[in-house]
This record gives sequence, C-alpha cells and structure tokens, in this order.
Amino acid sequence: MSKPAIPRGTRDFSPEQMRRRNYIFDTIRSVFARYGFEQIETPTMENLSTLEGKYGEEGDKLMYRILNSGRVLDKIKEVGPNVKISDLTEKGLRYDLTVPFARFVVMNQNDIAFPFRRYQIQPVWRADNPQKGRYREFYQCDADVIGSDSLLNEVDLLSIIVDVFKLLNVGFKIKLNNRKILAGIAEVIGAPEKIIDITVAIDKLDKIGLDKVKEELRSKDLSDAAILKLEPIILLSGSNEQKLATLSDVLKSSEIGLKGIEETRSILSSFALLFPQADHVEVDITLARGLNYYTGAIIEVKANDPRSKFTSSICGGGRYDDLTGIFGLPNVSGVGISFGADRIYDVLEEAGGFPDFSTVSTRLLFVNFGEQEAAYCLNLARTMRNDGVFTEVYPDSAKMKKQMTYADKKKIPFVALVGSNEMTSGMISVKNMTSGEQHQVPAGELSSFIKNHNS
Amino acid sequence: MSKPAIPRGTRDFSPEQMRRRNYIFDTIRSVFARYGFEQIETPTMENLSTLEGKYGEEGDKLMYRILNSGRVLDKIKEVGPNVKISDLTEKGLRYDLTVPFARFVVMNQNDIAFPFRRYQIQPVWRADNPQKGRYREFYQCDADVIGSDSLLNEVDLLSIIVDVFKLLNVGFKIKLNNRKILAGIAEVIGAPEKIIDITVAIDKLDKIGLDKVKEELRSKDLSDAAILKLEPIILLSGSNEQKLATLSDVLKSSEIGLKGIEETRSILSSFALLFPQADHVEVDITLARGLNYYTGAIIEVKANDPRSKFTSSICGGGRYDDLTGIFGLPNVSGVGISFGADRIYDVLEEAGGFPDFSTVSTRLLFVNFGEQEAAYCLNLARTMRNDGVFTEVYPDSAKMKKQMTYADKKKIPFVALVGSNEMTSGMISVKNMTSGEQHQVPAGELSSFIKNHNS
Repeated sequence: MSKPAIPRGTRDFSPEQMRRRNYIFDTIRSVFARYGFEQIETPTMENLSTLEGKYGEEGDKLMYRILNSGRVLDKIKEVGPNVKISDLTEKGLRYDLTVPFARFVVMNQNDIAFPFRRYQIQPVWRADNPQKGRYREFYQCDADVIGSDSLLNEVDLLSIIVDVFKLLNVGFKIKLNNRKILAGIAEVIGAPEKIIDITVAIDKLDKIGLDKVKEELRSKDLSDAAILKLEPIILLSGSNEQKLATLSDVLKSSEIGLKGIEETRSILSSFALLFPQADHVEVDITLARGLNYYTGAIIEVKANDPRSKFTSSICGGGRYDDLTGIFGLPNVSGVGISFGADRIYDVLEEAGGFPDFSTVSTRLLFVNFGEQEAAYCLNLARTMRNDGVFTEVYPDSAKMKKQMTYADKKKIPFVALVGSNEMTSGMISVKNMTSGEQHQVPAGELSSFIKNHNS
Repeated sequence: MSKPAIPRGTRDFSPEQMRRRNYIFDTIRSVFARYGFEQIETPTMENLSTLEGKYGEEGDKLMYRILNSGRVLDKIKEVGPNVKISDLTEKGLRYDLTVPFARFVVMNQNDIAFPFRRYQIQPVWRADNPQKGRYREFYQCDADVIGSDSLLNEVDLLSIIVDVFKLLNVGFKIKLNNRKILAGIAEVIGAPEKIIDITVAIDKLDKIGLDKVKEELRSKDLSDAAILKLEPIILLSGSNEQKLATLSDVLKSSEIGLKGIEETRSILSSFALLFPQADHVEVDITLARGLNYYTGAIIEVKANDPRSKFTSSICGGGRYDDLTGIFGLPNVSGVGISFGADRIYDVLEEAGGFPDFSTVSTRLLFVNFGEQEAAYCLNLARTMRNDGVFTEVYPDSAKMKKQMTYADKKKIPFVALVGSNEMTSGMISVKNMTSGEQHQVPAGELSSFIKNHNS
C-alpha cells in the first residue's frame, strides 16, 4: 500500500486552520450582508461552453476538465488518433466566480431584483504551478452589483473594503485607477496598443529612475514626442487631487480621459464624506489589472501592516460594462470586488492577528472514571450543552494521564473530575488547566462557573 | 450564442435558498460544536489511488475523474487504441467525506488528539442518474469519532441527532440496528451470504404478510428449517426491550449475536438516561444500510413529521472497526453519522418549517432623490450598518416607482425617504412597507427605531 497523499497544490485544513479561515470568511460575509448583498452559490462543474474562451488562452489551458463518464475509451477507439479534447470532456471546474455569476444572472434575470447585489464565497480551481501562496484550489469571496452604473456602488465597495480590514485589524492601502484614464493616455499619445507597456514602465519609476523609464519606453517603440507628453504622468505625484489636476491637464484633449478623471473625483469625494479623516485610497495610474475586462474604476488593495512583510494584493476589482453580454444579455453594467482569503490568512498569521478561539472550541471535559460516573456526567454534559457550553465526556475510562493529555493536546481549558464522592455531594471538582487551580462547584452552577471564568 | 445552462443534476442556489440552506448547516454545525466536534476540510480533488476501490464497482463507475492537463492528446496518440482510463486521469472528485477523512487521519495521526471528534460539511459528486431529490453535486454533513470503541460515542451521536432535529423542529424517528445481531442471525440459520435477502424480505412483513415473506425466503433458497427458526424474528414486535428479549432467545447460541444485543441494550439504556420521556429510538433489525462497511451499531433517521409526506432517510451512520486500515493504520475503531441536508431541506420546505429570515436580509432602503440627498443618506447608512442594521442606499436617482418596486421585490421591510426637508429638519420619513404606515424619526434614533419595529 502506498503512503496516502493529496494532489499537488491542494490542502487539508485542520481544526485550528478552519477556525482561522472561518473567522475571515465570517467577517467578510457579515460586512457584505450589512450592505444588503445576498449570497448565491453556483455548481462546482460548469459546461465547457460556459467556461471556455472567457479567460483567454491561459485560462483555457489552466482549466480543469471532467472526463466524460461512460464510454470514453470506446469513443477514442471510434474516433481514432485524431480524437479531440471535446470528445473526452464536456464539463470543467469553476475557474472564477464572475463568469458563473454572469451566467446565473442571465438564467435568472426574471426573478432578480436589479440592481442585484450578490456575494459568493466558493472555491475555484486552476492547474497553475503551485508555489508559496498559490494553490490549485482556493477560495474567492466576491461581491458585485449588477444593473446600475451609479458610482455610489463603487463607494459602497470601497466602504466594504475598509470595514472588512478594520474588523480584521489588518493594515491596508487601496489603489484606485480608471480604465478610461488609461484609454485617455493611450489616446493622447496615439498608441492605444502600448498602454500595458506604458503602465509597466511607469510603475518602475521609484526603482530605476526617470531616465531608465524613458529608455524602456523607447525600447517599446514609443516616439520621443509621445514620451515627452508622458513625462508629467511618469512623474505624477502629490495628493490624489494634485495627481488628478495634472492628469486633467495632460488629457485635456481626450474626452474619455476626462470622463475617467471625473469618475475618480466623484468616487473620492463621496468616499471622503464617509471617511473624512482617513487616508485609505491612493490614485495609482500604474494599476492595470484585468485591463481587457474592466471599463471604469479599477481597485486593488495591498496589505500594508507593520507586523507583516506581506505587501501582496489582498483584494481587487473594478467596473465592467458588459459582463452578461457573453451570455446574451447586453448592456448591463456591473462593478465588483474579490477578497483573497488565503493571502489575508497569511498576513494575519504573520501579524499574529488571529483572535483567541478558545470560546468556540471545547470548554469543558468530564474525566471518565467508569460506567456509573460517566452516566452521571452524560446528564450534566447535556445541561452544559443546552446552556451553550461546548462540552465533552471522555468516552473511555482510560488512565487519568491519558485523559489529561487529551485535554492538554486539545487545549480544553477546564476539566471536571466526578467520582463517587462528587456524585453523592453534588459538588463538582473543576480543574483550571492553565492555572492548575482546583474549584469545588455545585453541579447546578457549573455552566455559569465555566462561562464566567476565563482560562 | 446558445442559451446558457448548467450541467444536469447540478443546481444554482438563489439568495432565499442560501438562507434556508445556511439555516440547516448552521444548526447542524452549532450542535456538532457543542459536543466538542471540530471542523476539518479536505480537497475537492483526491488522487484516484485514494478513491478507487473504496466504494465498490458502482462507486468506481459513478466517480467523476479529472482529465490530466497537458499532453493528454499526445498520450492517446502515443499509446494508441489500447489507451486506458489511467492514461487520461489521475485525480477524481470527492465521492463521500468518509474516505478522505480516513486519509486525513492517517496523514495527520501525529498531530491529532485521539479520540478525534471531527465534523466536515462539504459537497460530494456522483455521476448518478439525477431524479427528484437526487443530485450529482450535494452536501454531506458528517460527524465521526475515531480512536475509541466506547459506546458512549454512539450515545453522543444519537443525542446530536435529537438536538439537531429538535432545533430544526422536524419530526423524526431513529432506527437502530447492529451488524453483530445480523451476523448472529446469519450464524444461527447457517446462511451468512443470505443476510441481505433476509432483511429485505422481513422488511416487507407489513405490506405482504407472513406467508408471502416466507415464500420470498424460500425463493431465495432458504431451507424450511431456517425459515422456521427465523419466524420469531420475522414477527418481531413490541417495545425495544421485548424485541431484544426475543432476539436473545433466538440467538442464544451465537456469541456475536448476543454481543450485538448487549451493545444495543447498553446504548439504549444510556440514551434513556438523557431522554427518559422520549420515544425517539426504535430497534429495527431490517435496517441493513452499508452492511459491508459497518461492524457494530447501524443508525438511520427517517423524517416523521405530520406536516410533510416525506419519510425518506434524513441521517444515517454506524460503527466501523477498521476504516483507516485501507491507508495503513489498522485497528482504529470509529463511529459516525451523516446528515442529508438536501432531504432535510425538502422536509422543512414542505412542512413550512423555515423561520422568517427578514432580520438577516436588508432591513432598510434609503430612496435616492439625487446627488445631494444620496450623499446625506450614505452617511446615515454607514451609521445604520455600524449599528448592525442591514442597509442599502438605492444607487441611482431612478423614478420613485422603480425604487419602491425594488424594495418590494427584495422584501425590504422599511424604506427611508430623505429629501431636502428631511435633510434640514433631521427628521427622517420612514415607511413601513407591510402596513403602509409612515413615521417621522429623528436621524439619531433611526437604527433603534428599525431594530424595535417588526415589519
């Protein structure tokens, strides 16, 4: 028999990891709900006709496909050596939550109250090369509003980001850009196909300096005139308002560019009403994530916590003007964000930011001294559980040491010792496993004793 | 473009369905936790070496397999027409929660505090023929104790069943059997290979009568002598104690049979200490689920609610003496139960048993009268959310009728109307969408007003 193992890039989660993960998921969920977002779930398997072609060539390559059940080997024999992938498979695993959401909206458009505020927390699968922090199975936590082009939706999503990371007590910085600003830049320099090269080069300013950035732009075949026009954008600095003022000047001939600036100003001013003292959002025109996908605001959140060296992206999103068009429902605008639970986990772990979960795991263990005593304890345990105290009765009348080791290993803070004396007197001996103190507690007061004593 | 669809046997879940499903999952989870069970999760994909051969021929047939990524077509060309399934796939989707749990225990045996009380709530996949109540993707909710052969574990699991269905307010009946009793019956009539045929025939007594049951047994090649011996078992009736007394007599020559009776008596007497007035458990020797798998107690729970016609199995389980042996850790006894969330959902739905979820969805919608008003409402909404009131600001200054239709469709109980008058006076007009009543509420008292008023 070979040693059991799990597939590369997948993970088991232990009880302690589950408590930590649930803490993150529950926090995100509670904030989504406060803002009127409602949960949906979609199937793990989708038809390949739903998935293929929606994530680019890379996505089609990294998608997990389900082998058709039944006569797949017969099919191969029948078709011969020119068998195609589509002869072997019709279904794939969920690759993200956005495409299934778009399909859901189209299929359920008559039952949905638009603007539809939905959230969805489910795993997705990608046959990517596993590495630190990158898995083949991982959770996404998405909130989207679909069916409204109001910028108040962007403001709600930014507020959600602030609320989530404040509740989790994780330091963060929100970067904000707008696809229309990038389109404007491309327009004024007359090189729309170069916009990615431009943002990549500009992003290096701090590291390599102005001259090298210019050099890189020249190497991408940008004309000197274009680079000259770009210079104020490369050197963009100051407050958000100063950056937007510079951009207004450079993009004054671009209608779409000015529209992007106006949208960004509107989002920032509404946001400032809600968080007048805060400094959460920074305009960053090098932010270009999902460029082919987003049509308005682009949002990215970086971890920025003094207790952790992680500065990775922990949330991102933006506005897309035609998500459901691919499934036959055109002209529906949407905007959404997605929290990366695994990366938030890493930041919190490094920062020592997880709370104490001892109140949501077993609080009290009854030691088992034999059949009679255990029967008595079973009844007491029932009362404890009904009172909301997580309680166990050790199932076997094993040696005391073994039972105490169990309590230790499971970090159970209180152990009750009920022998024949205790059964007669109704006074329960309770040991605090942290301090070692022993208390005599009347059976009827046991649950309030446990509830009122911290370990 | 073809109309979007989801694979046969899979489901999307709407917000209302999610609230109902979460209500079931949260209830089950809360009871598991009270008894000291801890949550784990295992990957969706397992190596086929972990899954194959564990669920019989049927299981291997119904298992979903993942197409190897990369050069699978090259592989087919290379191997030619005699390509095997194992050339195409190495991984499958989780088929149940028990085998992955066994693998988890073996892989993590050094970190686990035994007896290990774990629960797991995750979907599983089977390429079964979909029909009413049977899906290709469905959730299982399992609790198991592994590493203890004490019957107190069976008692804990029976208590959990009672607690869950009492909290859900679903009528139920627990059926209890023991593999050893069945082995005893097989032993005394000298036909161990016929035990399934026997239980199937006996189960028909109420429908077809004694003579027909005997006829069926004869048709299965049971001797007249064997059938004569079986007669008291076929006619088994009365209280649990009466049934066990009859069995003791019939099985008096079978050591294993008597052991099964003793175990059942012990479980029932401990259980009776906890639920002295109740009539939850019925000994039923026709219960033979998972026969090849279980070695001791066999448990099945049937819905038995006056408000619902469903009498299907809503929970089941039993003891297995060597689950982890298949992965190289022999002689570890375990016992577990599994709740069928989908069937519980069906019973609750038919019984009208779901609670009112209006407090866990949006309670208040601010109508949007324009930019100024919306900005004012955004701030108020922030306060409401911080006070725990689920709140939305309608994002567009659409026609009043459209906004009210949205509130209606989403069943939002309160709508706040904030125009320039309200902004000046600080008195908010709140409309109760059920009664139609309108109230003037000071802005500072808005959240307490909403919290204290039912819709």
